Amino acid sequence: MDRDSLELRSTVSADGTLRLSLEPVSLPDPGPGQLLVRVEAAPINPSDLGLMFGPADLSTLARDGDGLTARIPDAAMPGLRARIGRSMPVGNEGAGTVVAAGPDQQHLVGRRVAMLGGAMYARLRLIGAGDCLVLPEGAGAEEGAALFVNPLTALGFVGTMRAEGHKAIVHAPAASNLGQMLVRICQADGIGLVNIVRSPEQVALLRGLGAAHVVDSSAASFPGDLTEAIAATGATLSFDAIGGGETTSIVLNAMEAVAARDASYGLYGSAVPKQGYIYGALDLGPTILRRGFGFSWSVGGWLLFNVLQRLDPAIVARMRQRVVDERTTTFASHYTARIPLEGVLDPDTVAAFVRKATGAKYLITP
Amino acid sequence: MDRDSLELRSTVSADGTLRLSLEPVSLPDPGPGQLLVRVEAAPINPSDLGLMFGPADLSTLARDGDGLTARIPDAAMPGLRARIGRSMPVGNEGAGTVVAAGPDQQHLVGRRVAMLGGAMYARLRLIGAGDCLVLPEGAGAEEGAALFVNPLTALGFVGTMRAEGHKAIVHAPAASNLGQMLVRICQADGIGLVNIVRSPEQVALLRGLGAAHVVDSSAASFPGDLTEAIAATGATLSFDAIGGGETTSIVLNAMEAVAARDASYGLYGSAVPKQGYIYGALDLGPTILRRGFGFSWSVGGWLLFNVLQRLDPAIVARMRQRVVDERTTTFASHYTARIPLEGVLDPDTVAAFVRKATGAKYLITP
Repeated sequence: MDRDSLELRSTVSADGTLRLSLEPVSLPDPGPGQLLVRVEAAPINPSDLGLMFGPADLSTLARDGDGLTARIPDAAMPGLRARIGRSMPVGNEGAGTVVAAGPDQQHLVGRRVAMLGGAMYARLRLIGAGDCLVLPEGAGAEEGAALFVNPLTALGFVGTMRAEGHKAIVHAPAASNLGQMLVRICQADGIGLVNIVRSPEQVALLRGLGAAHVVDSSAASFPGDLTEAIAATGATLSFDAIGGGETTSIVLNAMEAVAARDASYGLYGSAVPKQGYIYGALDLGPTILRRGFGFSWSVGGWLLFNVLQRLDPAIVARMRQRVVDERTTTFASHYTARIPLEGVLDPDTVAAFVRKATGAKYLITP
Repeated sequence: MDRDSLELRSTVSADGTLRLSLEPVSLPDPGPGQLLVRVEAAPINPSDLGLMFGPADLSTLARDGDGLTARIPDAAMPGLRARIGRSMPVGNEGAGTVVAAGPDQQHLVGRRVAMLGGAMYARLRLIGAGDCLVLPEGAGAEEGAALFVNPLTALGFVGTMRAEGHKAIVHAPAASNLGQMLVRICQADGIGLVNIVRSPEQVALLRGLGAAHVVDSSAASFPGDLTEAIAATGATLSFDAIGGGETTSIVLNAMEAVAARDASYGLYGSAVPKQGYIYGALDLGPTILRRGFGFSWSVGGWLLFNVLQRLDPAIVARMRQRVVDERTTTFASHYTARIPLEGVLDPDTVAAFVRKATGAKYLITP
């Protein structure tokens, strides 16, 4: 049996060079509880880009022998101390076919599985069966490639909303693959959702999905539109993947303006708790908070893995089952392009997929 | 009995004028559970300045008939919508002598009480007995003037620390009256405290109180000093009264740098929860967060009144008793100057007390 794999690795060296390369790896035979999977499809999510390229200056991308290199600005190096010299595998999720299995998992040989756990940008992945969802017979690899990160993140937003006692959500930027899933979930579950997008085309896209509240941050009427949408839904919770700049601040101020319409508005701002979560870093610049929203507010990081650990396990199990059941509807992903594993080392291909254009999504097909 | 009072009022008008004035008010006789108190001393806390002057441009302070006016920048007016046309009494806390009482409170006539509840910058205050602490016989008014806001805030920091599972605190700016109380509390209770101050003189002041960790943000060695003090105490919680600028961001990044020393440091930053609370607005500018601290972080507003409502009532009762017991030691306040009620309408006097110099504290003696 072929157990020789190639794995994409990202390494930061002390001199400020980031290097991507494909490393040959020989995997052991699967032990009890383990599966050896031939990876057939793995999406490039924004969180993967963070690990692949970190804060590297992408204008310095260049081929270097078998690898691809980029320079890391000096100012960013202290934050990368823990990565220096560590060759890190990449790729949070993917799907493929089980080619070998531990003695207790032989019934899964030949089945297609969706996987979560890193190191998916590879020919083969040795993985615990518990980190896989077994797909129904006949399901294609692309159907299973992205069943964890975006679907569970979107469901996690709703789970967080319920756990923390909010009744509606503001999301930005909302036209992403994840944003479209969230539109479909909130529609099905009757949850108020304010979608912040960046262009009239994106407004049309989400309205086409049936979204009731879509506001365009490029429009002159944006501040008023946002405030009215928040008033209409009662949203006091937001999720922001941009991170840098003023998105969360603008949302919190709009929530406070709505709260201030109430007669109980106090001297220190409203008593309505307003929560903004930052779950991505599309903009690596600083988060700017203009504190016109009193003292009843919180802004924090939101990371899927941490949230899944905090939520009730029964809720998480229902979330996973729903993702499998609705994989070709609510949680279907659409890909802009498919690239081979080697494509990740091509500067032109990289330049295309790091552009992070909202709604554009790349799939690696090893 | 004289029931004619003068109350300091702050009023914002729609044209952007803020006006302070002393308004004659005739108070009713105290009903059941009520006390009529002759106010003898009331401190000017930063939170009082917020209500008195809001975001007014203090370079435009001017006498206008019996009052004092200042211009409010246009950009700040939307946030003041709820205040327009409302004549607001000022002064969160104070102390005085009970001159009349409801039929069930006659035993308190002649006693000196400490009060919390607003409208303390006045000759007389009608107040519920439950909002007062009765001072021991012989206690002076100055001893009781500031027994609520700063003492309960300092104890509230410790209560929040325990309730949220942290083991030490970072405080900035730490040389304030409140900061000195916090030094004494943490010393008595054996709690790690990192004091951030702004000058060598303030370092000396807090070291003189016995503070173990005092770091000077004006020193070149500040970033390293802060990180080492956080490492020594294990602080993962901070309280920041400055609000604007990068103080909280710098503290969270230092906490993350300490967490990154651990081998379990992950791809998305450390899993150590880091909490920064903003409890004041000495700098009204935007809060800047340079998110080099992963995704396990939260920054939020901290308001004494909200926190007292959330904490266990038994804990709050113990806090109040401790404040009375230790009013001349742990919770003693020292005043820079005493001014009559009319002094608040004098531009030169106002210019002095709004300077918010750390450690300087004014007392109104109506």
